[in-house]
Amino acid sequence: MGTAKTGRKLHLNAFLMDTGHHEASWRLPESDPYAVWDVEYYKRVARIAERGKLDSIFFADSPAQGHDPARRPPGKLEPTVLLTVIAGATEHIGLIATASTSYNEPFNLARRFASVDIASNGRVGWNIVTTAGADAARNFSFDDVPPHKERYERADEFVHVATKLWDSWADDATIADKAAGVHTVPALVRPINHRGRFFRVDGPLNSPRPPQGWPLLVQAGSSEDGKEFAATWAEAVFTAQQTLEESQAFYTDLKARAVRRGRDPESIKILPGIVPVIGDTEAAARDLEDQLERLIDPEHQKRNLADRFRLDPDALDLDRPLPLDLLPKEDEIQDAKSRYTLIVDLARRENLTVRQLIARLGGGRGHRTFTGTPVQVADTIQHYFENGAADGFNIMPAVLPSGLEAFVDKVVPILQERGLFRTEYEGTTLRDHYGLARPANQIHTAGVAS
Amino acid sequence: MGTAKTGRKLHLNAFLMDTGHHEASWRLPESDPYAVWDVEYYKRVARIAERGKLDSIFFADSPAQGHDPARRPPGKLEPTVLLTVIAGATEHIGLIATASTSYNEPFNLARRFASVDIASNGRVGWNIVTTAGADAARNFSFDDVPPHKERYERADEFVHVATKLWDSWADDATIADKAAGVHTVPALVRPINHRGRFFRVDGPLNSPRPPQGWPLLVQAGSSEDGKEFAATWAEAVFTAQQTLEESQAFYTDLKARAVRRGRDPESIKILPGIVPVIGDTEAAARDLEDQLERLIDPEHQKRNLADRFRLDPDALDLDRPLPLDLLPKEDEIQDAKSRYTLIVDLARRENLTVRQLIARLGGGRGHRTFTGTPVQVADTIQHYFENGAADGFNIMPAVLPSGLEAFVDKVVPILQERGLFRTEYEGTTLRDHYGLARPANQIHTAGVAS
Repeated sequence: MGTAKTGRKLHLNAFLMDTGHHEASWRLPESDPYAVWDVEYYKRVARIAERGKLDSIFFADSPAQGHDPARRPPGKLEPTVLLTVIAGATEHIGLIATASTSYNEPFNLARRFASVDIASNGRVGWNIVTTAGADAARNFSFDDVPPHKERYERADEFVHVATKLWDSWADDATIADKAAGVHTVPALVRPINHRGRFFRVDGPLNSPRPPQGWPLLVQAGSSEDGKEFAATWAEAVFTAQQTLEESQAFYTDLKARAVRRGRDPESIKILPGIVPVIGDTEAAARDLEDQLERLIDPEHQKRNLADRFRLDPDALDLDRPLPLDLLPKEDEIQDAKSRYTLIVDLARRENLTVRQLIARLGGGRGHRTFTGTPVQVADTIQHYFENGAADGFNIMPAVLPSGLEAFVDKVVPILQERGLFRTEYEGTTLRDHYGLARPANQIHTAGVAS
Repeated sequence: MGTAKTGRKLHLNAFLMDTGHHEASWRLPESDPYAVWDVEYYKRVARIAERGKLDSIFFADSPAQGHDPARRPPGKLEPTVLLTVIAGATEHIGLIATASTSYNEPFNLARRFASVDIASNGRVGWNIVTTAGADAARNFSFDDVPPHKERYERADEFVHVATKLWDSWADDATIADKAAGVHTVPALVRPINHRGRFFRVDGPLNSPRPPQGWPLLVQAGSSEDGKEFAATWAEAVFTAQQTLEESQAFYTDLKARAVRRGRDPESIKILPGIVPVIGDTEAAARDLEDQLERLIDPEHQKRNLADRFRLDPDALDLDRPLPLDLLPKEDEIQDAKSRYTLIVDLARRENLTVRQLIARLGGGRGHRTFTGTPVQVADTIQHYFENGAADGFNIMPAVLPSGLEAFVDKVVPILQERGLFRTEYEGTTLRDHYGLARPANQIHTAGVAS
């Protein structure tokens, strides 16, 4: 247990979605299909994650309805609202929300995250996304999604502006001198006067600097543009790989990119997504996996896959291999580029039929499924963690809350026993949990206030 | 007590701001100047309002820092975040947040209010504002505030789109048929395909129809454009008048405008803002008023007034009357037009010096101050209510929480005793409290689902 000796600890995030990541999870006898719009349900699930001492929970998002309403729950509560509710029902766990840089204004979003960070006493993280999909674009007066590169250029400027806004107040700007009539020192609240390609923002923000300085900055795109963005900004990265070797390659590459920008490689935590399907025996785990697979509608999934590949659904035959020669190249794809390549590589490597590919994607949408006993799942996690493939994991239960309960109650104790995971929260903020520093203020540098 | 006999009931909203509406309230010995960023403080204040069975609480907002940070607390928690926190700490009271149609996208805002309505079980209201001020504009890549008329045209289209998005799902769209694999009926979730001057929005919303159908629509501008907008959309109107006669004229005019649009005059509730300064004796009430007045910095307020009048501060002399001949006309003002006129009219009517005008504005920023004993305040409220000037009041305590506690504990019981105000909440939603109907669905009309 070299890891236990070095004291290096895993980071674990619970990626929560509806009644589970498996598209058919709502159809299981145990699931409440109306729970997806019930804040009490999410509070309950978040408390399970907190019971397991997980670093954080996370909600993905897109500002579009986006898929067939019959097949899986078609709406979502807005994540910053939902996490604010959960903040009031939990004490320790970090709270990460996706928000789009393509369809928001930096002033509004910087301010909203500052407020959630205040409301949660420093527990919020922002998963920065550029938002794929023409359906989202068409809710914001665009005809189609802006080009991939331009979305990332806007994202870069957006985050730059947001960090300046969070830094527009010194941490000690408020002195509340009643006798002198000075609530907040004017010199310690400064405009940012940003003039860029996408935005002109005077500032200052109308909010004190958040408890964490900045919310934790999270990122999840693995395209070339995405990795460059992550190397610049991200402090935690959610990623999808199907093999240990791919995970190692991604891990090594992204840490090296961060180092080339002068960053400490420890300042960027890499968390591959895994779908744990846990049974007390291997057979029980396989049974659960099979039960979910039978609930997938392959014709519907074939249409989704055809959409992703920009093919006519009739070009795909469920019982034949994916027609690789008909597929576009990654550089012709403007949306979710790296996920596209992952799926094509998976089908090619294992020579999967369309039906087999659909079954593999049903649970994790490209993330790796770890099916097995609690010890087997813990072993795999440890193996990745100790072999340069991960700083932790983004846990994506196929079924909620039961899949999270199984992970928390059966896998986490093994990881704790092995010295790989905390047994109590040590700090109070999300940055504390991930072992990440509070950012220095770019505008009000040390000494200004003294 | 004709009113008690007719059963017509007052509606009361608590307009909460920082440590009180009086700009110097944070300097009082009783005030905690850091409370303004503490969600626990706002929960406590909201529970006081709920103890008084008030219809709702309200937070104003502007996406700009906006004033001298020394004089009053310069930041605010974002209201939809703050109200979400309060939703978890209260059971009945309605929750109204300001949000700007000039600096948001309709998809995002419709969705956020839908989520807060869900999180609060149908208690949210949206105070629709077009946002005055070049400082806000300059946080959103504009050089100056867009023209008044254009802001209202955008607001009209914005609200139209928002209501369509809330109606894009039928109320009974989700059937959760596990056996058939139909979570939500596709035909009951429809695009809106809006194509307008300001927005193109395909929809549908990625959220179920909110519990209230639409959040309660609130409005507060009293310019000509503002009144036309209110007559079209508003279900509750916050307004500012200095005299009974002005309130009656506004009330009559706005109800008539609504009727001309085919609306029931009872479907729009008009709530003038009042600043109650309450003492057990008249002398005690005057003392409290004087104490606050002494904490105002007149030189700072003179600069604010000069800004509003677009004058050099040196053009104003604290101890001379307002120089009426130097002031611009209302139609030359692009910001807060009706408030401008109200202030000029007040100064003219009472021939106030600049110093006297500042004292009058210190508490209510143009809203009427009711200073007196609980019975005197209740009498004035009843007099307005029974004489065609108000459907209720927007209560703006000069100091919080003490001013709200005085109103709730001393004035409310008198109004209840007189049969003018509820003694228990009767419904569960904000619309229930205001006696306003749940809007019919414009897209999924009756019978579609059957």
